[in-house]
Amino acid sequence: MLLILFFTFHFYLLAKNVLDFHHPHQLKEGLEGFSLDLPVQPETLEQLLVDCRDTLKYGVSTGHPRFFNQLSSGLDVIGVAGEWLTSTANTNMFTYEVSPVFLLIEEALLKKMRSIVGWADDEGDGLFCPGGTISNLYSILLARYHFYPEVKTRGMGALPRLAMFTSEHVIITHLIFMCYRLMKGNSTFLFTEHVYTFCLRGKIIPAALETSIATAKEKGLVPFYVNATAGTTVYGAFDPLNAIADICDTHTLWMHVDAAWGGGLLMSDRHRMKLEGIERACSVTWNPHKMMGVPLQCSAILVKKRGLLQECNKLGAQYLFQTDKPYDVSYDTGDKSIQCGRHVDVFKLWLMWKAKGSDGFGSQVNKCLENAEYLYDQLQKRTEFELVFKNKPEHSNVCFWYIPPSLRSLPPGPDRDRRLHQVAPRIKGRMMEKGSVLIGYQPLGTKVNFFRCVFSNPATQQEDIDFLLDEICQLGADL
Amino acid sequence: MLLILFFTFHFYLLAKNVLDFHHPHQLKEGLEGFSLDLPVQPETLEQLLVDCRDTLKYGVSTGHPRFFNQLSSGLDVIGVAGEWLTSTANTNMFTYEVSPVFLLIEEALLKKMRSIVGWADDEGDGLFCPGGTISNLYSILLARYHFYPEVKTRGMGALPRLAMFTSEHVIITHLIFMCYRLMKGNSTFLFTEHVYTFCLRGKIIPAALETSIATAKEKGLVPFYVNATAGTTVYGAFDPLNAIADICDTHTLWMHVDAAWGGGLLMSDRHRMKLEGIERACSVTWNPHKMMGVPLQCSAILVKKRGLLQECNKLGAQYLFQTDKPYDVSYDTGDKSIQCGRHVDVFKLWLMWKAKGSDGFGSQVNKCLENAEYLYDQLQKRTEFELVFKNKPEHSNVCFWYIPPSLRSLPPGPDRDRRLHQVAPRIKGRMMEKGSVLIGYQPLGTKVNFFRCVFSNPATQQEDIDFLLDEICQLGADL
Repeated sequence: MLLILFFTFHFYLLAKNVLDFHHPHQLKEGLEGFSLDLPVQPETLEQLLVDCRDTLKYGVSTGHPRFFNQLSSGLDVIGVAGEWLTSTANTNMFTYEVSPVFLLIEEALLKKMRSIVGWADDEGDGLFCPGGTISNLYSILLARYHFYPEVKTRGMGALPRLAMFTSEHVIITHLIFMCYRLMKGNSTFLFTEHVYTFCLRGKIIPAALETSIATAKEKGLVPFYVNATAGTTVYGAFDPLNAIADICDTHTLWMHVDAAWGGGLLMSDRHRMKLEGIERACSVTWNPHKMMGVPLQCSAILVKKRGLLQECNKLGAQYLFQTDKPYDVSYDTGDKSIQCGRHVDVFKLWLMWKAKGSDGFGSQVNKCLENAEYLYDQLQKRTEFELVFKNKPEHSNVCFWYIPPSLRSLPPGPDRDRRLHQVAPRIKGRMMEKGSVLIGYQPLGTKVNFFRCVFSNPATQQEDIDFLLDEICQLGADL
Repeated sequence: MLLILFFTFHFYLLAKNVLDFHHPHQLKEGLEGFSLDLPVQPETLEQLLVDCRDTLKYGVSTGHPRFFNQLSSGLDVIGVAGEWLTSTANTNMFTYEVSPVFLLIEEALLKKMRSIVGWADDEGDGLFCPGGTISNLYSILLARYHFYPEVKTRGMGALPRLAMFTSEHVIITHLIFMCYRLMKGNSTFLFTEHVYTFCLRGKIIPAALETSIATAKEKGLVPFYVNATAGTTVYGAFDPLNAIADICDTHTLWMHVDAAWGGGLLMSDRHRMKLEGIERACSVTWNPHKMMGVPLQCSAILVKKRGLLQECNKLGAQYLFQTDKPYDVSYDTGDKSIQCGRHVDVFKLWLMWKAKGSDGFGSQVNKCLENAEYLYDQLQKRTEFELVFKNKPEHSNVCFWYIPPSLRSLPPGPDRDRRLHQVAPRIKGRMMEKGSVLIGYQPLGTKVNFFRCVFSNPATQQEDIDFLLDEICQLGADL
């Protein structure tokens, strides 16, 4: 059974198209024997294989070199093998008792990642979390506990009204899902105020951050936390980390760096200077499932101050964390986490690291950024396209408009904007129907819908990029 | 490469021992070529295979029929195949665009699970979450939003001081990881007060709950939420759901049922009456990765009120949730979640359901509970053991002491208790060294360390249970 599946999956890896799109109602009505229904009696083995085949057939090949839709893409064969072994081991990360090797692997990975961030060997702690939002959430809990440990016993009522700061662009980037809840919505969770700081091309302006902090203090708020982003979701922008660290030093604020997307660049000698100053952060979010091509999910929160995670989240449930166990119970990391039970997300990264070496990850990152430069060069050359920014991309994000023939002679203004806004969604719709390539689009601030291309799959070649541009031109020629 | 791994993994499934224990320092120093180090240059393929083999060798076989240590155990071959396909597809649950089939599978599963809970076909919503703690967290956020939607715009400051209720046993059960943070620690997250209600053998006493509610009101708190547990972690106790629902009706409280562990019993015609009244809950946590043997992780939060999840958590990030997409965007469920990005946890459950049918899950649950009854019968017969409760187990948890020869003639009292308290940890230590079987222990309230055996692996046979008891007797004979 498993062997047959192996070949089914392998076949899938070689699929020619990125997707075979069907609307929800089409898939729900059933296609060629594919049915979502859950039976009372078992199905045959034959039918199960059809179910597997169809699930892959009607899904999206995120590993396809022409899938440019998401920050996570590619399909690393060693990473997949790692994930397969993980599911076979089928265990939980809460205690050394049931996860001896995986907990040590987590420790080794976190130590290595902290040293790459630039922290001293004897500093730091961390955890792998179910995604970047939860990693970011940890950083806020830690910052609050660091300044106000009484929160654990006396609650938020004992604290002043806290304020946290981030770039206005974060409202449309990765952090949003935390931001919105933790900050914008008057803090559903954490009861702090949020302050957005103005930025330029997605980067925080340090002087504007200073002003925001002063204004918050005037309002009677107590600033405690700044989130700097290393690689925003849409523009791939890097906040000026050293300038922000200076401000955090001056005001004694917790500096968190959300490097979920940009963290991968630390692996490249050529690009890691874009994160200069990250070593001054108190905590860092870094998602190897993005730029490093590790299968989903793989996200780490790194913390500079050792022991803080344990102190902040410790509880000591007797049924799991007995202190009279026959081994060093400091490896029972479940008590550091807010979830307790955690999926094993570390083995695939560890195995990939063994297979590629740090150097291999570096080359992979370089390749992705070269692809972004190639696309940028092509866009400059071709008159059918317009770049959202004239500058060379810092990360692998490249943002651009396709200008269909009917709009090329129109003067800039509301009419052109209104019509241009409709171009990307219409091309995207046709692209999905055709299934040959996939790319994302969005509006941002005053900018109407534009395409955002991202590269995180080292299998992508220049010919795939040429194909993308030609395909957009072809699909949009009549618009 | 993948093919070789396949056989490595397959070999692992047939391992004779439950574990091959080594202390952290032993594994860190390296054993027979096993090294945790992360290299700069790639390792050879041969070495990678050694890494894989050793990771499995020094790990714990949670799928072994003699692994009784955790609520999640077993290794369903179809479930593993489902997980392998999932990692090959390597996608994210946030939008229909990148997860068309998996989102429809999630919808089908949630609908089926809600109908099994007993809700009407046109009612309800839900999500698969990274573990039961996060599922429970959702229920509290939803309850708060349901009663106080202004929390989203005006924050907790606009709300009265809220109180939530649960059984005192929850402090040592599954909910603890939420409880502690959401309730006990004066609510790190949610700023509500918690109230524990006295219980008998792990079950809430309805009259005590009434008293707790009245006391909270006298203190000026506003009760809003009751957590009832269906299957506590240690005793496997079921709260009286109908009586609790009556109280919730009287006081207009949100009733949540944490059926993370007990939910599986809904699949069995013989045992589902233990959850009678669950259909009256406003929300339910149900972890198929526990009693139903689905590989980790697989946990669902089910919500009776349709639309509430979306309203409560909606944000509308433009870069993901464009409203001008060419398909029905109500399938973009990322906006319902607090994490946005979610691992695909549904396919393995769906495939197992197809392979077994609902009836197959029912038989599997029956088998596990028969094993518990068999163990209970054996413990009654054998004089070396003492049951923690005389009553027949309701779930598959069986709690007992082993009384070594030296303690058998001692009268009950502090001296016997002190010595008995040390028995289970010492046997457990020897058990781990030997590696032939694994079972958990803990103290609870005034009860000194006792063993808790749980059955969730349908591969366990009566001879494995006999083996467990004989092994405990042998390992503890000299204590």
